[in-house]
Order: sequence, then C-alpha cells, then structure tokens
Amino acid sequence: MTRFAYLGPQGTFAEAALRTLPEAATAELLPQPSVVAAVEAVRGGTADAAVVPFENSVEGSVPTTLDELAYGRPLVVIKEIVLPVNFSFVARTNMALDEIKTVAAHPHTEAQCRGWIRANVPDAAVSLVASNATAAVVVAEGAYDAAVTSPIAAKHYRLTELATDVADTATALTRFVLVAPPDRLPDRTGNDKTSVVAFIRDNHTGALLEVLSEFAARGVNLTRIESRPTKDLLGKYCFFFDCEGHIADARVGDALAALHRICADVRFLGSYARVEGEPRSLPPGRSDADFAESAEWLARHRAGQLP
Amino acid sequence: MTRFAYLGPQGTFAEAALRTLPEAATAELLPQPSVVAAVEAVRGGTADAAVVPFENSVEGSVPTTLDELAYGRPLVVIKEIVLPVNFSFVARTNMALDEIKTVAAHPHTEAQCRGWIRANVPDAAVSLVASNATAAVVVAEGAYDAAVTSPIAAKHYRLTELATDVADTATALTRFVLVAPPDRLPDRTGNDKTSVVAFIRDNHTGALLEVLSEFAARGVNLTRIESRPTKDLLGKYCFFFDCEGHIADARVGDALAALHRICADVRFLGSYARVEGEPRSLPPGRSDADFAESAEWLARHRAGQLP
Amino acid sequence: MTRFAYLGPQGTFAEAALRTLPEAATAELLPQPSVVAAVEAVRGGTADAAVVPFENSVEGSVPTTLDELAYGRPLVVIKEIVLPVNFSFVARTNMALDEIKTVAAHPHTEAQCRGWIRANVPDAAVSLVASNATAAVVVAEGAYDAAVTSPIAAKHYRLTELATDVADTATALTRFVLVAPPDRLPDRTGNDKTSVVAFIRDNHTGALLEVLSEFAARGVNLTRIESRPTKDLLGKYCFFFDCEGHIADARVGDALAALHRICADVRFLGSYARVEGEPRSLPPGRSDADFAESAEWLARHRAGQLP
Amino acid sequence: MTRFAYLGPQGTFAEAALRTLPEAATAELLPQPSVVAAVEAVRGGTADAAVVPFENSVEGSVPTTLDELAYGRPLVVIKEIVLPVNFSFVARTNMALDEIKTVAAHPHTEAQCRGWIRANVPDAAVSLVASNATAAVVVAEGAYDAAVTSPIAAKHYRLTELATDVADTATALTRFVLVAPPDRLPDRTGNDKTSVVAFIRDNHTGALLEVLSEFAARGVNLTRIESRPTKDLLGKYCFFFDCEGHIADARVGDALAALHRICADVRFLGSYARVEGEPRSLPPGRSDADFAESAEWLARHRAGQLP
Repeated sequence: MTRFAYLGPQGTFAEAALRTLPEAATAELLPQPSVVAAVEAVRGGTADAAVVPFENSVEGSVPTTLDELAYGRPLVVIKEIVLPVNFSFVARTNMALDEIKTVAAHPHTEAQCRGWIRANVPDAAVSLVASNATAAVVVAEGAYDAAVTSPIAAKHYRLTELATDVADTATALTRFVLVAPPDRLPDRTGNDKTSVVAFIRDNHTGALLEVLSEFAARGVNLTRIESRPTKDLLGKYCFFFDCEGHIADARVGDALAALHRICADVRFLGSYARVEGEPRSLPPGRSDADFAESAEWLARHRAGQLP
Repeated sequence: MTRFAYLGPQGTFAEAALRTLPEAATAELLPQPSVVAAVEAVRGGTADAAVVPFENSVEGSVPTTLDELAYGRPLVVIKEIVLPVNFSFVARTNMALDEIKTVAAHPHTEAQCRGWIRANVPDAAVSLVASNATAAVVVAEGAYDAAVTSPIAAKHYRLTELATDVADTATALTRFVLVAPPDRLPDRTGNDKTSVVAFIRDNHTGALLEVLSEFAARGVNLTRIESRPTKDLLGKYCFFFDCEGHIADARVGDALAALHRICADVRFLGSYARVEGEPRSLPPGRSDADFAESAEWLARHRAGQLP
Repeated sequence: MTRFAYLGPQGTFAEAALRTLPEAATAELLPQPSVVAAVEAVRGGTADAAVVPFENSVEGSVPTTLDELAYGRPLVVIKEIVLPVNFSFVARTNMALDEIKTVAAHPHTEAQCRGWIRANVPDAAVSLVASNATAAVVVAEGAYDAAVTSPIAAKHYRLTELATDVADTATALTRFVLVAPPDRLPDRTGNDKTSVVAFIRDNHTGALLEVLSEFAARGVNLTRIESRPTKDLLGKYCFFFDCEGHIADARVGDALAALHRICADVRFLGSYARVEGEPRSLPPGRSDADFAESAEWLARHRAGQLP
Repeated sequence: MTRFAYLGPQGTFAEAALRTLPEAATAELLPQPSVVAAVEAVRGGTADAAVVPFENSVEGSVPTTLDELAYGRPLVVIKEIVLPVNFSFVARTNMALDEIKTVAAHPHTEAQCRGWIRANVPDAAVSLVASNATAAVVVAEGAYDAAVTSPIAAKHYRLTELATDVADTATALTRFVLVAPPDRLPDRTGNDKTSVVAFIRDNHTGALLEVLSEFAARGVNLTRIESRPTKDLLGKYCFFFDCEGHIADARVGDALAALHRICADVRFLGSYARVEGEPRSLPPGRSDADFAESAEWLARHRAGQLP
C-alpha cells in the first residue's frame, strides 16, 4: 500500500490536496508535524511520497519547502496540486455572528480573511494559532468561540460552518507539490512544468541574465523565478526556476545542461504535469525534431559532407 | 515623539530590530498583532513608521510584507536592519536538559533549530505556537517546560536561558525594514539599495529578460529578485527587485524610468542605506557625471553643433 | 547657387543619383576623382554637399565612404538616394553582338553582369577599367568595341545602347548618400533613419551585445550593422549601425546617449528620411510621450511625491 | 601537382599572399581575371583551391568574395593569410620625383596612399586603373611616368622602386583567404577561427540579438560581423560572422547548431588556423570536457539516476 506523508495535522489544506489524488483513496496517509518531517519521511523511506505546500501557502512555510528541496538528499516533484483558497468560519454549534467574542486563526489565514473578519465579526478578539487544524481544535475544545479554518478541518472536528467561501480575494489559489525519490520521473504529457534550482557562480546581474538567456534562447518559458539566500549567508543567492516543458523535451534538457555548465551547481527538482495554463506555441526551431535535425546538420559539416 | 509600530507582541525579533535604532530609545513603540496591522498603522497615521520582517523571517510572513508594500497606499522602505538569527533555549528556572519533556516554538524557529533540538532534547515533545513571544509566554505560564525563542522575549518574560546562540546555521541573518510614507526618502549615502516591484505586461521569459536588461545596461546590480503571483491569480506574476544604488543616482533613476515605460506598472519601494556588502565598482560610463555628459552630447548633436 | 560634389567623372551612377534631387537642376555639379575628393570638397568648403556611394556600389569604394565618414572632420548624411542597378551595353554605333570582340567594364559592373556577358557575347575579351565612365570613354575613343556601363554615361558620351537593363539580378539596388556639414540636420519626417559609428572599448561579443541591447531596449530597430577594422589595426573593430528613427526621437536620442556612455567613442553620422521600408510599429512604452511621462514619474518619485 | 587559382593578373597582392604558402612553391599558379573567376575555378575543378581577398582589400572587391562564399555551391575557407599593406612607388628607370608628371594607381591603392602622393609628387596627375598589376603594366609600357603598386608587381614587370613602404597608415593589413571544397576541413590547432553566414528569419534587432546571444552564451567570441543585403533586395540582410574556435570545438559546434535551428538558413564557411590574436581564455563551463560532462549529467537525470 502506498504511503503518503503530508503536512499535518489532520484537517490541513495539505490533506485536502492529497485527497484530490485518486490513489490517496487506497493509500496510507501519514500526517507530519512539519514540512521538514514530511520530506524526511520520504528520504528515510517511511513514506513513498509527500504532499507539502509550495506557494502562497496558508498552512506552513513555503521557504522551508524550497530549502528542503534545494539541500539534502535529492528528491523531485512528481505532481503539483492547485487548490482554491477557501476558508470556513466555524463554531461548535450554530450561533449568531454577534455572539462571537473570540476567534482563532492561523496567521496566514488571518491575513487572507482580515477584511471578512472586520466586516462580519468586528468586535471579536482574534488570536493567532499554529495551524488551521489547531484553530479547529481550540474551538472544538471550547477555548475559543469560533475559528477561520479549512473546510476539511471543519469536517474532521465536526464543527458547524457559520459561513463558507470566506476569503478577501475570491480567486486565490494554493499550490502543493507531491515529492518523491528521483527515480519516479513522470512521463511527458505535452503540458509539463520543470523545476530547478541554480546556484550561480557570481551574484551580479549579468550572471542572472546569462542564466535566463539560456532558457530564452531555447524558447523555454519561465513561469516562476525566485532568488533565495543560500543557507550560509544572506546576500549570496540561489535561484529557483519553474519553466514550461519536461526534461525529456530536447529544448528543456539542452537548457538544463547549459545551466549545469555555467552555474556553480544546478539541482533538478522535477518535471511533472502542469495544472494551470496552456503550453505556449514554440518559436520556430525549438521542437525535438529541430534539435535532432540540427545535430545531424552539425555532424555532416564536421565530417566535411556538404551538399 | 516619534511613534514606531512593529510586529509584536513584545519580545519579537522585530522589537529587537527596532531597538537597534538610536531614535527608538526616545520613541513610542507600538507592538502590532500582524505585519498588516503594523503597516496599516503607518498608512492610518497612528504610527510614523513601522518595523516589519522582510526576508528569511523567523517571526512572521515575509510574503505578507511584500504584498503589503506592493498594494494599497504607497509606502517606502527608509531603512533596513539586519540581525543575526540567534535563539535562546529558555525555561522558567534553571533545569537539566533531560528533565525537559515539552518544548514550545514558532514553526520557523523550530525549522531553524531542528538539529539543535534533536541533539540536545531528543525526547522532548515539540509544540508549534504562533510567535516567539507566545513561546515565551506559554513557558512563563507553565504550560510548557521550555521554549526556543528570541533573547529579547526571554528577557521580557524573565525566563532563564539554558542555552544561547541556538541555531543550526551559525551565520543565518534576518532582514527587517523600516517602512514610512514616501515623502521621507533618505539621502544618498554612497552605499544604498533600492527596492521596486514591477508588474510585467506579458509573462514570458523575454519580458523578464527585458526588465533585467534595463538594470544590466546601466550597470545597476541586482541583489535580490523574486516573482510573486499577483493578488488575483496564481500564475500571473510581478517581480520584486532589490538593486544597488539610490533612485537619486542617475543610472538607477534612468533604469527605473525605463522600467516604468516598458512594464504594465512599477511601484517604487524605497532607496535606503545598505547594511551588507560594498558597492561594486561601476563599469565605465555609468556615473552621474557620465549621464550628465551624455545628455549634453545628445543636446549638442540634436542642435547640429558638432565640433 | 548650391554646389554639389559627386563621385565622377561625368556619367557615373553617382551623377544619376544626384540628378534625382530637384535642387540639382539649378545647382552647380562638381565631379570629383574619388570619394575622398568629393567628401573633402565639402570639408574644405568648395562644395555644400556631396553625393557618394554607400552600399553595394557599382562605382567605387564603399569602405572608403565609411572610412571618410568615420574619421576626419565630422559630416552627416542628410539624405539617402536609392537607385536600381541598371546597366546598358553600348557601342559607338549599332552593331551585331557577334561582331563584338572587346568589352570594357568596371570590375563591379563586370561582376554584376557576368552572366549576361557570358550569355550574349561569350567570345568577347572583357577588360577591366577604373570606372563606368572610363568604360564609356574607351569605347567612344575606339579602343574597345563595346562597354557595359551606366545609362547616364552612355548618354553623356553619345554611345548607342545595344541593350538596356543589363544585370544578372533584376532587383539589385544601390544606395548613395548626400553628405553635408552637421549643422544641416534634416527635420523629422516620421519615417527616418539614423546612422552612427561606435568604437567599442573591448572587442568581445559581450561588448557588441551590450551595444545592440541599448537599441533593442528602446525599441529601436537596426537596419544595418557592419564591423570595420579601425584604421590602425585589422582585428580591432568599430561598428557602423543604421537604425530606424531620428535623433530627435526620444528613443533614438536616448539610445545614442547610452552608446556614448558605454563606448570608447561614438560618431553621429546623420538622421535623414528613409527611402525604403515602412517604420515598424513601436512596442509599448517607446513613444516620445512615454519618455516624457517616465521622466515626470521619476522626478515625482525622487521628490517623494507619490500619489 | 596542386593547382592554385588566385586573383590576378600576375603581380597582385593575392599572388604575394599565395606565395607565402610553402606548398605554392611546387604548385601550379593560375591567375584569374576576377574573384568570381578564381572561385569558379575551384567549383569547376580546374583548381584545387583559390586565394582571394577577404577584407580591406587593395586588389578587388571584398563584397564579391563574401557573395561568392554565401551563394552557389558550398566552399570553405581553409586558411587565412594576412599581409602588411606595403606599396612601392615605381618608374621604368631611376628618376627624380619632381620629374614625374603622371601617376597610375588602382583606386584602393590611391585611397591608401593619397597623403604620400600629395606630399611627394604634389603636381603629378593621378589616373585610376583597374588593378595594381595594370598600374605596373602601363608604366612598363611608357603610358605613365610612375605608379603606386605592389612590390610583387614591381618585381614582375622589372620596374625601379623609387620608394618603398608607401602607405598613409603604416600598420594596415590585408586579409586573404584560401578557399577549397568542404571536404578539406583543416584540423584543430587550438587557435582557430570559424566563418559563417546566417540568413535571419526576421530582420529586427531582437533577431540579431538572438543570434549573437547564441555565440555569447557558449563563450564563443566574435571577431567580425557584417550585415550584407541579400542578393534580391537591399534592405533584407544576412550576417557574416567570424568567431574564435573550430567547428570541432564543442562550444562552436553547439552554437552553429543553435544558429541552424533559429535562422532561416546558415552556411558554414570554414574553420581554419587563426593568424592574428591569441585565443581568449574561456569562461568557466565552455570547454569540450564541460560539454561532455553536462551531456552525461542530463542523461543521468533523464533516466532518474540521481546520486
């Protein structure tokens, strides 16, 4: 039976993300106390894969996810899962909003629902707690009147939803990733994404331009870029890139090989099916066939075999 | 009397950062429950400036800081404050490490001290709490045996430091920023940094290359880059840049004006004294004198006045 | 009366180019023995302007024109004249092609009509002479049976055209330039071209990329580029650029000022009405209004006047 | 016996260039009336190779050489020969300079010796003739008093050198190339040059930047660039590039293959020993070993074989 670790406790958005996978229905689900613990479970072999938040998280530390992927034994992302950010306002039982004096919320949740809270329970005292699940627990235990939390936590702790779809920005989304050992590279689907982290030799703008040029030259579109301080020193940076395409695509593979040559270090973080967006049409000359044909052209010319 | 808001509660690293400013000694310090609240205090006029975490924070949400600066009424960074990340392991009274059964820690703190915790209190149960200050409070209240927290919180809540300089990475640093209304632009110091957020028209790699090229062409070195989803939609991005130099520098101002022309929108986030790093020597032709001379050269040629 | 020097002798394509100008009808036309002499006539004040070949010449040395413009007292191009390359095959009197035993031609003319000569007078001996006019003269003097030369030379020396429109490539064109002192800069027409020569500090590819990037960043399209050895040493190069637009255009002026900053030297060679091609539509943000607006934006931000 | 065609007639600098090759001593030398004829002799099989001027020629049309290489059956440059430009001032017998009334010179020679002529024979009438050899011939025949011509022509026509080292620019050089069928690609020497002509799909600055970026990204330094109108239409351009390195070098071959993909057409014009200049030290990651290692790295990652 497949074992999936995830950022717990039970009731987190990470669990909700994991449960969108059909294979989760028959798998063993292992809630973990932290992103680090979830990733380590895969490294240590106690889980086959782990779901952790990657971007705009409401549950935990995205920087931690980036750092976990960038350092330590290599793992790769094999799937991304995008969830709408969708909170519930919950209490133990049905009650009027003006009766509510205390509200618990995770700091990120509070940030995303601040406007709603001000408009609907303006007089309540808001306390910050460590997770959405904790927010549900402290309401279930009676320590707080209400909480803003995830629907899955509301369900898990059998709380009453006084309001659903609570969020200041209606279209906000959260991205989770499924992380696994590198020998589980998914096949190409035709609409893929590749993640990589590059440690550049010299932190000047020209060096970053060089790296971006390697993608641009091959018609590989970036969908995300982030500089991160390296573990040692704030001010020395590595760069996380997400790009369209799969490492098996000639243009993507060629770009990664070029990065490997010019950077101090490059770590491949996975190629996987892309959830959002259509692939852009390639500029001329960047298809697999074009790469194959140009390799033949070069071989012919090196051998002096001109038409 | 100057009023400084900061990310509270009392005892946070943000307070420690604020207290490094000489002017804080005679100012009114206003702890706020969140980054948003601290920034809003400045916007609303109840504070003159606010100290909030910006990067690699151990206290709260850096993405929140970025978003607060990128949207809403414009504010600017007028100072950066860099602190070594330096935790204390505290209890109510002096006790042996092997007596400790429960430890409270903020999730980011836990992440940065995980190795230390495993090595020193391997059998303790670690609980995550909402802030470093909360971690100190719950120990002071007796709910937990010990906490990993900030030295300032330890001092504030009169806890005993069982260990200091607790951190897995000895040289880790945290960057805070002092945020104020835009009419308080600091003077040039000769070693400055400028922050800006650019919303690019089209999210392809070429568009990002164009933006970076405007910096590179003028010899303006970037020290940080981060794409962030815009508020509306994950997948559409804006870019946060930190660069060397001051908006009053010809090369920096010229680069920002170029960005303003080619981007959908650009928001200036401040020019301020740089804490870390020396300014790079400029490539030839990028000094203020060079810009002035080239403007004269152009005017002469437009007027047909060649030597 | 305006005095126009041109690359002579009478009967050259340069004369034909000059005669396309309405003002030539009432001007004094001064044939010169060389490009150098024609340009020097303007520098020395014995002519007001000069017509010399610039590109794909059939009359003389285009490199000489480039060198004359790049060195010595500055002059500017104030007009370009494009002529179809259109030769005549001439003799003293009407005669059959198979009677022709000897043919005179300028080397460039011969190169452009080689196919025609082989097909039509395969048995004739072809001799190379110093100019199209000379080719006509030697036929008029009876030294050769026939010549391939310019229609204007045929007319001038009253020769009989045995064939017209003689050329291997039907659509070939030649570009001439009208060169004058720099105080005669033409007004903008909306479809202009600007010529410039840049001496780069360091002859590596990155340096050339930098120069081209300054044009590209401002949406200024190049229509011609040529590296030329500097006078001193083959292997050290300067670059001749033609770009769309007028030095009075904000984007062009800004690009030239940037070149002036980053290059060892830049010489402006003129802005003038473009004969061929339509102006490309500008990318967003590169109009004069955009430049003016961005300058205001910068001034406002430097003054701390944010909305 | 090897047969070498060259741009004749006897006595040209092209002959002088050819005679610098040791193998010319025992070869059959075939003077040709034009660059075109010399190149065609190789294409037609009547010569094994041809010496033609390539750059800053004093003998004939360099554009013709470029066009001959760019169109028609492919040939490659297998050697470059650089000669100092070094004219002689010659007469039939020894005579005083002030006795000289008429001087013959090729137009390019005249251009390069104009200052010397003015200073030394200011009252002589200068006539332009079709080649340096012709200039010598017309003096030998008594039609002119003196000529500026090549030392080899002076020797060939047994003229008296009244002055040697005649040239306005002491360090001028001329580059000749030895052209042969493509199956004679020379071996790498470690200090090589590669020539190529690229027909770009779209004639905007961005397209040229893309092409240059392919060289720059691989650390391949350009030593020469020239846009040339295509045969059909002035205004549509192709680009001639000379770069450091040999097509057998990984970085050069990879760059050429990339050009082949992104351009409408690319024609390889040869890799050959470089006469002038030292090879630049490569930036990190561009050696053959680096390319081989990055290919292995990519293959490993595609196969899921991470360390």
